[in-house]
Amino acid sequence: MSAAKDSVAGDVVVAAHDRLVATRTGIDTRGEPVVYLRNDAAIARSEGFAALARIRVCANGHAIDATLFTVSGPRCMLAPGQVGLSEAAFSALDVEEGAALTLSHAPAVESLGFLRAKVYGQRLDGQAFNAIIRDIVGGRYMGVHLAAFITACSGARLSPDEIVDLTGAMVDVGQRLQWPGKCIVDKHCVGGLPGNRTTPIVVAIVAAHGLTMPKTSSRAITSPAGSADTMETLAPVDLDLATMRRVVEREGACLAWGGSVSLSPADDILIRVERALDIDGEGQLVASVMSKKIAAGSTDILIDIPVGPTAKVRSRAAADALEAQFQYVAQAFGCRIQVLQTDGSQPIGRGVGPALEARDVLAVLKCSADAPADLRERAVLLAGTLLESVGAVAAGQGQVEASATLDDGRAWRKFQAICEAQGGMRVPPVARHRQDVFAPRSGVVRRIDNRLIARAAKLAGAPGDKAAGLFLHVKLGDRVREGDPLLTLHAESPGELAYALDYARTQGQAFEIGED
Amino acid sequence: MSAAKDSVAGDVVVAAHDRLVATRTGIDTRGEPVVYLRNDAAIARSEGFAALARIRVCANGHAIDATLFTVSGPRCMLAPGQVGLSEAAFSALDVEEGAALTLSHAPAVESLGFLRAKVYGQRLDGQAFNAIIRDIVGGRYMGVHLAAFITACSGARLSPDEIVDLTGAMVDVGQRLQWPGKCIVDKHCVGGLPGNRTTPIVVAIVAAHGLTMPKTSSRAITSPAGSADTMETLAPVDLDLATMRRVVEREGACLAWGGSVSLSPADDILIRVERALDIDGEGQLVASVMSKKIAAGSTDILIDIPVGPTAKVRSRAAADALEAQFQYVAQAFGCRIQVLQTDGSQPIGRGVGPALEARDVLAVLKCSADAPADLRERAVLLAGTLLESVGAVAAGQGQVEASATLDDGRAWRKFQAICEAQGGMRVPPVARHRQDVFAPRSGVVRRIDNRLIARAAKLAGAPGDKAAGLFLHVKLGDRVREGDPLLTLHAESPGELAYALDYARTQGQAFEIGED
Repeated sequence: MSAAKDSVAGDVVVAAHDRLVATRTGIDTRGEPVVYLRNDAAIARSEGFAALARIRVCANGHAIDATLFTVSGPRCMLAPGQVGLSEAAFSALDVEEGAALTLSHAPAVESLGFLRAKVYGQRLDGQAFNAIIRDIVGGRYMGVHLAAFITACSGARLSPDEIVDLTGAMVDVGQRLQWPGKCIVDKHCVGGLPGNRTTPIVVAIVAAHGLTMPKTSSRAITSPAGSADTMETLAPVDLDLATMRRVVEREGACLAWGGSVSLSPADDILIRVERALDIDGEGQLVASVMSKKIAAGSTDILIDIPVGPTAKVRSRAAADALEAQFQYVAQAFGCRIQVLQTDGSQPIGRGVGPALEARDVLAVLKCSADAPADLRERAVLLAGTLLESVGAVAAGQGQVEASATLDDGRAWRKFQAICEAQGGMRVPPVARHRQDVFAPRSGVVRRIDNRLIARAAKLAGAPGDKAAGLFLHVKLGDRVREGDPLLTLHAESPGELAYALDYARTQGQAFEIGED
Repeated sequence: MSAAKDSVAGDVVVAAHDRLVATRTGIDTRGEPVVYLRNDAAIARSEGFAALARIRVCANGHAIDATLFTVSGPRCMLAPGQVGLSEAAFSALDVEEGAALTLSHAPAVESLGFLRAKVYGQRLDGQAFNAIIRDIVGGRYMGVHLAAFITACSGARLSPDEIVDLTGAMVDVGQRLQWPGKCIVDKHCVGGLPGNRTTPIVVAIVAAHGLTMPKTSSRAITSPAGSADTMETLAPVDLDLATMRRVVEREGACLAWGGSVSLSPADDILIRVERALDIDGEGQLVASVMSKKIAAGSTDILIDIPVGPTAKVRSRAAADALEAQFQYVAQAFGCRIQVLQTDGSQPIGRGVGPALEARDVLAVLKCSADAPADLRERAVLLAGTLLESVGAVAAGQGQVEASATLDDGRAWRKFQAICEAQGGMRVPPVARHRQDVFAPRSGVVRRIDNRLIARAAKLAGAPGDKAAGLFLHVKLGDRVREGDPLLTLHAESPGELAYALDYARTQGQAFEIGED
């Protein structure tokens, strides 16, 4: 009853003997704020705190909501009065070690009612999406809530108007950029095709033509590399807004990581859970892409949808449906958009993984003899389409002009200038461990499974290890002999190399080798 | 490169300097196995372990998969070579402090492919559900995966055949009970009605009539009390199978917690996440209920579906759909089933919360003057229906007989005998803190919101604190004067009392008081 004596209903006061101080535990929870409390702490009893409760933590003016774990036993890491903070909680609270903390029950998260309605299949309006997205950005959703939201929005469960409202909600919680000039171009590939790293090449070509392209890219969600991961091996991409503006003013373009300018902070949080689930639903995808384009101030957007049996989009019908969603959202926000459905039957280029893809990009930009022809061709198609669509070149001349910009070195010089402006060009790292995977028999490569290729590259360590991934030695239609290398795995640790190799050998029917 | 020297690709060996030993951290993660590893451990580098990676932990013959958190910094709770284990990981591994551990990447969880297919809206077959449920019971799903599975199965997203397959998968991973005799009766309420604690009364009545009713109940999922929570305040419910058999042999019935006999271990895991999400989807609900009934060996099942604007099932149409799903699954497994749609317009009884509901149950069984008439009436309806459906009494005589069994004390004596057989009757606890909530104006009670009543009881600490919850002073149609008590909140801590009171005052339009 002692705790009760110190309190009055409706106005709980913390007793002096229950003073709590912050302790940095050094525990990395990948961004989730967690507090650790001794289960014999007086406040655990007076407030009825149990493990997994949501707790509001306050310290010198800052307040965060965090998940509670209780700690007990003889080896307890906490002394009486100490409250352990995960790295995320420690930095979000911005406290010193030993600072006084107060803990209380986190207020009820009202938007979870909207989340439940969506889970049960109801349609949500803009106000509901605004409430959900504000609570997500405010750190009030736990991992299970984020997973439920992502799942409830996947599998064609968002109507076109819901996608518009979700997009708007995501734009509203982030920064919104404005650029001088009426025409701001942008491109995006919906993904699913390993090695399809056209962005740096397209940006270099169109910027060399004087267009403005302040490109912000994501890190990988479910793939072995995102454009930001690849670009980071070539130049700094973690640009603040001032740097980004300076680069674009000087060179007309940049190749930055979107997360660092906080264009869509909700998306940055959702992506963490999408990656753990390996799920990237269409409605969510459209809202994620369009919220970033709108926030980035883009007016003319090109979307690349690779279509193939093992790509993210597997049929023409699915691509048409996705295209319609992009068009609908673009129209709602007054952007011009063009969608290209491209061949998604096999990986593009040779490298899969941040640094390995960067090498392919460099080869194309430098017009090296070993440059992968398919990557160049795809980049030229996209850049040419963009050049034509904004009237920078005559209709029908886009690809010719884009090609010429590569051949005469303008694109390569522009790319180097952009990298210099972003902080200096880098040499992509090389993995410490490599291992070939060989053809089990002779014949012709009839099928390459994009998903298995991506999975093997991820098991080898991509995108976390920039140098990790794999290098493809064959393309569809190539003739191979038994024992020829099909791919080379690249990894930074022997454990990951073994893990990826085991997968490639036992699970990975990544290549179908048929009769001549 | 030192780690690499100790390893060969495909056959990773752990170097002597990297010997890892178990340390019990005392961290309570509510059942989720977690390992804590110093981020400077050689194996973190050699294996490429990062925070949130899934890790296989092996020790003297046991292997578990756990989520990894890395720890760094000057206040690191781990000495070099120590691997911290959460309480769940420590007990699942069954190791001593200081025992040698080996860590490796957890094998890929193949059933996540089926989960993703379901998230994207595809239908799954029995094999897919078997694989998912086996991996869930094997501890291979993280919280976000469980949340995605629950969400993907909610909102009418399971076909009748999928519900049958999910039910079968859940039965297969648990124990399956068999009882002598051909007729084993059971009942279940789908919930959503606070205080609707008919089970102990129904069991006592039908057992007094000589029927066999080995009742296993759940703890609360999203409600302030499940039957097991309430019964636990009256007698032990944590019975092992041998005890349960002995009780049923002696008394013809028991009132046990289903989790302790592991009838549906998958459901026990899913319920933890359903509670965090406050979601309990219909298909999942039917599979959860039916898997437990089938595993418990029930042949004649009565399902109570309360229907009301703020109950779990809100319309006749929804109740019909749910009834059809129950019938379909029962037929697939060869059970007889009867479904009653009952009035769900307001709470039943006066108490809401484990101990408060137990007091209502006792009052009905003892035929006390203050026994809530609606609880007695509902229990008599259900017991009477069961008695008739198995031919224990003549058609049309069920409710008369059930009533008589209460009036002449047979049900009360049977209930006491069951409690004694389960380990001895208990007195339900009384909460230490109470606070009335008063009518803001005079008038007639026109509406009572079941959900807000349930929420207030949960904020007060139910079902975690057995004595917590609330006591209702009014029913629909009652005339109240301004300042009359509408309900009394019961809590074990002043913090929770204040929290529930704040909710009841500011958010909780739980009562609509209209003109006379």
